Amino acid sequence: MTIIATWEMSFEGVKIAQKLLKENKSNEDAICALINDVELNPEFHTVGYSGYPNEICEVELDAAIINGDNLHFGAVAAMKHIKTPIDVARLLMDSEYSNFISGDGALKFALENGFKKQNLLTGEAKAKYDVEIANKENADKGHDTIGAIIAGNGRVVSATSTSGLFLKREGRIGDSPLVGAGLYADSKVGGATATGVGEDIIKGALSFQVVNLMKSGLSAQEAATKAVEEFDANLKDRGETPRDFSIVCLDKYGNWGAASNISEFPFVVSDGEETKLYVSKNYGRTIEEK
Amino acid sequence: MTIIATWEMSFEGVKIAQKLLKENKSNEDAICALINDVELNPEFHTVGYSGYPNEICEVELDAAIINGDNLHFGAVAAMKHIKTPIDVARLLMDSEYSNFISGDGALKFALENGFKKQNLLTGEAKAKYDVEIANKENADKGHDTIGAIIAGNGRVVSATSTSGLFLKREGRIGDSPLVGAGLYADSKVGGATATGVGEDIIKGALSFQVVNLMKSGLSAQEAATKAVEEFDANLKDRGETPRDFSIVCLDKYGNWGAASNISEFPFVVSDGEETKLYVSKNYGRTIEEK
Repeated sequence: MTIIATWEMSFEGVKIAQKLLKENKSNEDAICALINDVELNPEFHTVGYSGYPNEICEVELDAAIINGDNLHFGAVAAMKHIKTPIDVARLLMDSEYSNFISGDGALKFALENGFKKQNLLTGEAKAKYDVEIANKENADKGHDTIGAIIAGNGRVVSATSTSGLFLKREGRIGDSPLVGAGLYADSKVGGATATGVGEDIIKGALSFQVVNLMKSGLSAQEAATKAVEEFDANLKDRGETPRDFSIVCLDKYGNWGAASNISEFPFVVSDGEETKLYVSKNYGRTIEEK
Repeated sequence: MTIIATWEMSFEGVKIAQKLLKENKSNEDAICALINDVELNPEFHTVGYSGYPNEICEVELDAAIINGDNLHFGAVAAMKHIKTPIDVARLLMDSEYSNFISGDGALKFALENGFKKQNLLTGEAKAKYDVEIANKENADKGHDTIGAIIAGNGRVVSATSTSGLFLKREGRIGDSPLVGAGLYADSKVGGATATGVGEDIIKGALSFQVVNLMKSGLSAQEAATKAVEEFDANLKDRGETPRDFSIVCLDKYGNWGAASNISEFPFVVSDGEETKLYVSKNYGRTIEEK
């Protein structure tokens, strides 16, 4: 079984997930454990508990999961007070309708299903807010979504979790909970997940596009590179300035790819033997082991 | 200028939009006027004012608009108390970030921008709720989104508006506000919009896929047919029972296409001379003028 996940913060979670897979846990169990490890870590301020808050200093979380076998998905957006939004998204996967819920409705669903209402704003995140809100126009826009894909044994599952853009509008939804934009999986082909400025990733349906390109015969790496380079060029062609976006993907056999339009994008790959940190450098032109 | 729009309820709105285009109003002005006509009509219970409510008898609205020139979009989801959500979505189009907002945040943004907080639940919609909530499992799931595309003069703009699935979970988000799923536009290619059960439309990123197929060289009609038939077959292949979905699309020259996996799907086309009601019949196999 192969796992790929965005950013260095996923390293320990990937190891946890690989261990669970070896104990014959499902891809869903493993990917949620991977993401929980990041969500619950108070040192990571762009995902889950201790995420940086929105413009009114409330932490609002987005998460999603898709099963590439039947395309069942679950997603939550702008949900407050729940430390592990990926687990709420997972609970929604096999509902007949309303698999994607937001705001107070998502919180209500979580509480009805046994989740605990908790404070998500840590002192460190609040301190960052106090500094940056005074300088809102030039504020640091954190946007490091955890996204992961697990492929093997004929199954592909993808998942994401994020606190979204720092100082975002109340109720803002990025790409991460959006099937097609922030994540996609098709067990006949492969899976992909994106991180960066959601407002741009959405415009290119980037995760769906990567899977589409793999379906057309491209390798995982070719698909990732082509999707990112073409979309970046496409935006420039229209007079736009592309913001940051990065992609990781796996084909159904576990071959991986990664691409980015930023100078350094770290990601983690585990093939079941070893877990390694790589960095996509020079705007996606080279990939090095770190 | 060519306009295509979903369902018979769009007929008067299409005529209004065509009139505005002849007065040299922008595609955005015209498409919003088209959608406002449906949103404000108390006889239409699946869009805007008088929409059927969610499971707790609250009307929550979704809408989106995308400019195919630069891919700027605006979208709102699960927004209460505003009769014309498409106008709120339009206001969000040229923000740098947070173009897609939901719930209380969307309402707050609307009120800050001069929209009036109003009751959206009509007596007729409430009466329907009272009957159906008692029989929730077998309730009629209304889902007729207004979706429209305007193409011509080198510009393509698409937009949607809906009250979503009747008796949906609080905070539920369907395909309509999701760029890629419920709508897409690319002025170099064309535009598409979907209606039906959003939970399935999302899985296929159907509007993006139709535009992708037109980009690859298919005609508008070929792209619509292929996207709908392939996705319907794809779901069946996975042991799923596809729910209803229908598509309309325009290429950048104004050639149109429509396809559906239901027995009768009406839609409206105006070429600037005449406005006609068509029906896609026999699960998309034939199209007749009505």
